[in-house]
Amino acid sequence: MTNKRPALIQETDTEARDLARQLITNARHAALGVLDETGAPSVTRVAFGICENGQMVSLVSDLSAHSQRLKTEPRCSLLIGEPPSKGDPLAFARLSIAAQAQFLSRDDPSHSERRASWLTSHPKSALYIDFADFKFVVFTPLHADLNGGFGEAYRLTPDDILPKA
Amino acid sequence: MTNKRPALIQETDTEARDLARQLITNARHAALGVLDETGAPSVTRVAFGICENGQMVSLVSDLSAHSQRLKTEPRCSLLIGEPPSKGDPLAFARLSIAAQAQFLSRDDPSHSERRASWLTSHPKSALYIDFADFKFVVFTPLHADLNGGFGEAYRLTPDDILPKA
Repeated sequence: MTNKRPALIQETDTEARDLARQLITNARHAALGVLDETGAPSVTRVAFGICENGQMVSLVSDLSAHSQRLKTEPRCSLLIGEPPSKGDPLAFARLSIAAQAQFLSRDDPSHSERRASWLTSHPKSALYIDFADFKFVVFTPLHADLNGGFGEAYRLTPDDILPKA
Repeated sequence: MTNKRPALIQETDTEARDLARQLITNARHAALGVLDETGAPSVTRVAFGICENGQMVSLVSDLSAHSQRLKTEPRCSLLIGEPPSKGDPLAFARLSIAAQAQFLSRDDPSHSERRASWLTSHPKSALYIDFADFKFVVFTPLHADLNGGFGEAYRLTPDDILPKA
């Protein structure tokens, strides 16, 4: 069987940008890739959300291995976009975001506003958001790879994916 | 608020092993972490399944970035265990598997048996399994981290997670 699929990376268009933003807006969790202490990749599940100022954030425990690793090595990757339970999971859109992580202190003046915003999108986190070890981490995107399904691949810039001003 | 949660890593028991094996058996896709060309983590979605011989495998296209990267750097991480659409995604069990990836040739004598087994669990892949660029990759586990929900963390060995003989 011959392979007649199109070239791998397509030209970024409005549809691709809108799809990426929609995935980001709807995501409540992500698969987070960090480097472990040997330099190998390590993927775990984290909460994920967008602040009112448009920043991509997570609420993480200082006690988790991924938090410890991000403090040493802030380069990370976030996979968002969950497939439905039916159909080929690879036929549904997802976004891989290369990012730099930065932790925010609970004493930061922005904490209370961010906390309120987070509780709106992640109400169940009220159970632990005030534990002393839970902190917000901001992800600054470097670039992103959108896979809209088979043969629909785009390389996006931070401007392509961040909320419109 | 004081933090009185239990010690982070709990002693591995039968329940933890069974939960990990159940997650592996039920998984049809995974978040795959590889190292990109700069040594940073990169997470993408891949198909995932178990062969009849108990090996963890994926069916991947040679044209994908993660395949290209795994050929250079076989260290990877697989996150499996999808949360339901309701409830806190972090309250549901998931497994992070540190592994080494090894590609199998389509000319390998095991290919046709593996192909038949894969099609049973991933029937939609019939659309592309015979494309020339699609190959099986076997993941040899090195260790795994089970998170059974808040405060339920286990470090598992390959023997803990591979199917019982």
